[in-house]
Amino acid sequence: MVVLSKPIAAIAVFVSVVTAQSFQRLGTCPDLGCILPPDQADFLAGQRFDIRLEVHAPVNGTQATGNPNPDEKFEFTIERVGGHRGVLSGAKWFAVTEPKLEKWTFSWYEDYFARDAGTPSIVNVASKAFRKVFLDEAGEYKATLKYNGKQTVATWRVRDLQEERKTRNILFFIGDGMTTNMITAARLIGHKQKNGIYQTKMAMDQFPVLGHAMTHSIDSFITDSANSATALYSGHKSTVNALGVNVDSSTNVFDDPKVESIVELFYRVWRGHIGIVSTAAVADATPAALTAHTRDRGQAAYCVDSFLHGTKNYSWVDWDGPDVLFGGGAENFYPPSLGGKTYNNKDYYKEFADAGYGVYLNKTSLLQAPNDKRALGIFSVSHMSKWLDRNVYKENLKGQANHPSGNKGDALDQPGLKEMTLKAIDILHARSKADPRHSSQGWYLMSEAASIDKMMHVLDYDRALGELLELDDTITASIKKLEELGELSNTLIVVTADHGHGFDVMGSVDTKYLLSQKEDRKKRSAVGVYQQSGLSEYQNTGELTYNDGAHFPSNWSPRYALFAGLATGPDHRENYVVHENGPRLPAVNTPGRPANDYYANDKDAAGGFIVNGTLPTEEPQGVHSLTDVPVFAMGPCQELFGGVINNIDIFFNMANCLGLSRTAHGKGQDPIGN
Amino acid sequence: MVVLSKPIAAIAVFVSVVTAQSFQRLGTCPDLGCILPPDQADFLAGQRFDIRLEVHAPVNGTQATGNPNPDEKFEFTIERVGGHRGVLSGAKWFAVTEPKLEKWTFSWYEDYFARDAGTPSIVNVASKAFRKVFLDEAGEYKATLKYNGKQTVATWRVRDLQEERKTRNILFFIGDGMTTNMITAARLIGHKQKNGIYQTKMAMDQFPVLGHAMTHSIDSFITDSANSATALYSGHKSTVNALGVNVDSSTNVFDDPKVESIVELFYRVWRGHIGIVSTAAVADATPAALTAHTRDRGQAAYCVDSFLHGTKNYSWVDWDGPDVLFGGGAENFYPPSLGGKTYNNKDYYKEFADAGYGVYLNKTSLLQAPNDKRALGIFSVSHMSKWLDRNVYKENLKGQANHPSGNKGDALDQPGLKEMTLKAIDILHARSKADPRHSSQGWYLMSEAASIDKMMHVLDYDRALGELLELDDTITASIKKLEELGELSNTLIVVTADHGHGFDVMGSVDTKYLLSQKEDRKKRSAVGVYQQSGLSEYQNTGELTYNDGAHFPSNWSPRYALFAGLATGPDHRENYVVHENGPRLPAVNTPGRPANDYYANDKDAAGGFIVNGTLPTEEPQGVHSLTDVPVFAMGPCQELFGGVINNIDIFFNMANCLGLSRTAHGKGQDPIGN
Repeated sequence: MVVLSKPIAAIAVFVSVVTAQSFQRLGTCPDLGCILPPDQADFLAGQRFDIRLEVHAPVNGTQATGNPNPDEKFEFTIERVGGHRGVLSGAKWFAVTEPKLEKWTFSWYEDYFARDAGTPSIVNVASKAFRKVFLDEAGEYKATLKYNGKQTVATWRVRDLQEERKTRNILFFIGDGMTTNMITAARLIGHKQKNGIYQTKMAMDQFPVLGHAMTHSIDSFITDSANSATALYSGHKSTVNALGVNVDSSTNVFDDPKVESIVELFYRVWRGHIGIVSTAAVADATPAALTAHTRDRGQAAYCVDSFLHGTKNYSWVDWDGPDVLFGGGAENFYPPSLGGKTYNNKDYYKEFADAGYGVYLNKTSLLQAPNDKRALGIFSVSHMSKWLDRNVYKENLKGQANHPSGNKGDALDQPGLKEMTLKAIDILHARSKADPRHSSQGWYLMSEAASIDKMMHVLDYDRALGELLELDDTITASIKKLEELGELSNTLIVVTADHGHGFDVMGSVDTKYLLSQKEDRKKRSAVGVYQQSGLSEYQNTGELTYNDGAHFPSNWSPRYALFAGLATGPDHRENYVVHENGPRLPAVNTPGRPANDYYANDKDAAGGFIVNGTLPTEEPQGVHSLTDVPVFAMGPCQELFGGVINNIDIFFNMANCLGLSRTAHGKGQDPIGN
Repeated sequence: MVVLSKPIAAIAVFVSVVTAQSFQRLGTCPDLGCILPPDQADFLAGQRFDIRLEVHAPVNGTQATGNPNPDEKFEFTIERVGGHRGVLSGAKWFAVTEPKLEKWTFSWYEDYFARDAGTPSIVNVASKAFRKVFLDEAGEYKATLKYNGKQTVATWRVRDLQEERKTRNILFFIGDGMTTNMITAARLIGHKQKNGIYQTKMAMDQFPVLGHAMTHSIDSFITDSANSATALYSGHKSTVNALGVNVDSSTNVFDDPKVESIVELFYRVWRGHIGIVSTAAVADATPAALTAHTRDRGQAAYCVDSFLHGTKNYSWVDWDGPDVLFGGGAENFYPPSLGGKTYNNKDYYKEFADAGYGVYLNKTSLLQAPNDKRALGIFSVSHMSKWLDRNVYKENLKGQANHPSGNKGDALDQPGLKEMTLKAIDILHARSKADPRHSSQGWYLMSEAASIDKMMHVLDYDRALGELLELDDTITASIKKLEELGELSNTLIVVTADHGHGFDVMGSVDTKYLLSQKEDRKKRSAVGVYQQSGLSEYQNTGELTYNDGAHFPSNWSPRYALFAGLATGPDHRENYVVHENGPRLPAVNTPGRPANDYYANDKDAAGGFIVNGTLPTEEPQGVHSLTDVPVFAMGPCQELFGGVINNIDIFFNMANCLGLSRTAHGKGQDPIGN
């Protein structure tokens, strides 16, 4: 499924406006001199990062100065405020040779009028890059770029964190696109009430600490999952589509300045054990941002290679592959001979097997896998099937031609997030415990409920809430597993989201009445608001049962359904009835009309009324939203996650708890010594 | 402004379906025997409440039993589980005479088909009520109603709370309809960023403890402000439109079973000083629920009387009026001779003055009022003017004919929430301190930013966010005031909302481009999502300045405006430009069409594109939503408000902190002795 729409993918071509416009020359660079990481960046002491310097010379457009040649003799200096080293050139500060000069040209549109007119603005650039540097004293730094008699100053801060390690393990759950509003709706359909009092609670409801995290990008106030994952894993906000880098203006999608991620840090500093689990293709943004460094999240084949080999170009940090990698996305593993799209056309099942991984392609083999061996589990082509289809509408698993072997069969034996996460914990625990340095190693597991987001994008709220309830069930089961292993008190558990989607529930819909009416306006009178919302019927009838007391609706298709959603999408139809035949396709191209001009899909939500979209008509699905997202925490360092924080603070809190801050004079010595 | 729509007001006539339907026989009574408060109710030890018992005999419809006569000899008993008193009749348990039998008949529609057909279901009722009783031992109780050989059992719980008082004062802020999504949006337009890092914080962002509160009603999953205020003030969820009561099936709107509110408790137990501040008419649901007890929030004249005299019918608790009552709603104060609608046709300015209140009708006189005298401040007819009109588009204050004297002049000198709240604190502090029993008295102030909700209802997001920023500014100023008075450490401050509205921000809109296009679908291409949302322009330009460094936009009408909202409303038009001429009127009746059949208002958001509504077409504005709302807490007992809680817990936490729980054998003696 293509999650991001055409206008976004186009960013790679026409790079980023000075202030608050729909298009930007380079969002992090309001002046004509650019320092990346930009002004206001925070760093962990010792964290590796690249520096990109650019001097822009706009040739035409509103920003043109009359001089089309960028100053190639620009100077870059660094100073630690209050420090003893004074102001040094970048090369002297980091004790490296002066980087070579690079030059390129890029173009961008200043606004929608310019885009319609086809009149781009051209910019010439002179640039240099420092690779794999770090700052190891806490405090404030001034990075200064002097060019053409002007200067750009970036204030950087190395956070002053304790270096003592406080937790052995971190279990980090990401509900992709999950908001408080969705948790409220999931609780309503998954848990029973009596007279307004819930008889059971969500696992998330029982976490001792709650926070809110701001999710905005560094250069736009709405984020995508690549950019937000970069903030969560590295403490550096970035730009839409970017994985583990700040975005520069060059066309090369692999030369943007990188920043070290939490798992790269954890491996480098502690040789920690690492698990990556997602219900998406593993090359999707949220899992990929742990190891990939590119400003183009679409480089799926590279992302898969980065899991195993890290990023070797431009000399980056050592990496030896995770202990566990589970998810979908088989098309980037099986070779081109089977229709795959892989890095250097290799067979990545073989590559992983050669590196000592057990390779598992279905739930049955996953559950039987040994716990002492590194494990790769790839269970479908593209994103994995949804909880609702795997558990309720199972016929939908057929005819998908998504078997992970690439044999065009169906992936009928897929695990859910719960099975993948529990097995990941077993393997990480066994391998960490078997290690002679067990107590100082531990593990870091990222587990993503990816299709909350993917189903919100296609306005399929039933499937999205099913995924959310599966996440909650996974959290419950993981806590139980950690208790059984005796590791609960040694594990910080954090549950959060990377961004929101506009969604809420406003009442109920009498679907019987709605479908019986002929006129759109009359159909709308089936909507009951306030008092007429009544009570949830999702628990009242139906004969579905699930094992081990998990909380899901017993009836996904009650007569009185949720009046949910919120029209921030394409033109589409709503009948508020569960989409029994598989995920929604709300809008389609109309034959005879231009491509990318989407209208409501008549076959979707048949019998419903038309909801005219509010998005650009080339956008076939819903988009992300601004709302702060919830953060739930329990275990060591839980207190760091309360109140209102920023998503980058989640990285700093996790790094702090794992003892990853490494100052030059700090007490915490680097146990690996590199 | 009429906030609630016709379908809701109609509830008073056709009372409440057994399970999860749009219409309900009596939502809290799935059986034919009803106990109110119903099963699962929680009580504070010593809290006064009424009990209503009903036996229903449906005459026709799906619930009819063939016997149209309700059992008049029903029996009601109470037992404390594990207690020594055994099972006693209600009259014996409370040591009162057996209540007299009441009988009535009501009708309701079973679903929309029945409503369309005009075929109501009739129910005959036999009933009794116990008035002003209480339970004073913590633990579980079984209340049993036996009728027609069947029985209904309600499990009640008296919470086991410490009786020791932990705070002198409580300052309780309610942002009516305020969600996390709105706070995020307000932060974006009110505070400056540099490269994704906010340079200032909201006051709410700085609270040490954050929680989420579930807001659903007792008998529907969407609440209104009356019902939710009842939960917040009394610990008892109720029904839409109900103030301080559970809703029974009789037609009398004043005989429903009452429950004691936090201010009635605080006055009875401690003779505490009480302040009520709102930017709405003071008779609006949120302020009125502190003292009013009726299931019809539309009884505005009664609500005003209840502030002064309490509820004397059916013998209710003593009450002597608040120290401070500030807000709008003059039409329920000045007499009918001036066009007012008052309780028993009296002049309530005179009534309050006769009771020793200073009466203030504008900001100038308010600020000069003595701090040692009780104060009534009524500053406009209906709800007060909005922050945006009072501070930016001031011409809109003219021609409103809303002077609080009733003289048809304009209320041009209105205070804002900040001025009202700071003055209320001054008066409460001075009067509490002057009292010989100061340290055991203290004060409770409820301050409501009412028009966040009211402006969300009419889809006027700029005004709603202005009200939210004014609330945040009020919180900042109140903390400073409390510090100056030396009372900050003696004051629990809680900020929350009573319910949500579907709202989020999905990007930015190039309003210049949108307004230049002719076709609706082309106008939509002015919307920038993800990367094209760009940065907030609300801080970048404009010449507006506000005193004392408060954080509001410097430009309310930037070219690149918020792409905000979410279509849960009537048909309407969106141009995303600030409504400079006053609050929005998104939908109107069309001449020649039936009344209450709303279409988009052509004069509203002129030049914008049409957004077809999703609500019933008789609904002219947006409606409330399900989402959990945020709770921010600081001060004594702050730790009680973290994590996910229910709105009724807010009452119990406040009551706990004020030492209001009074068990028969508890340590905390009732200092007033009544």
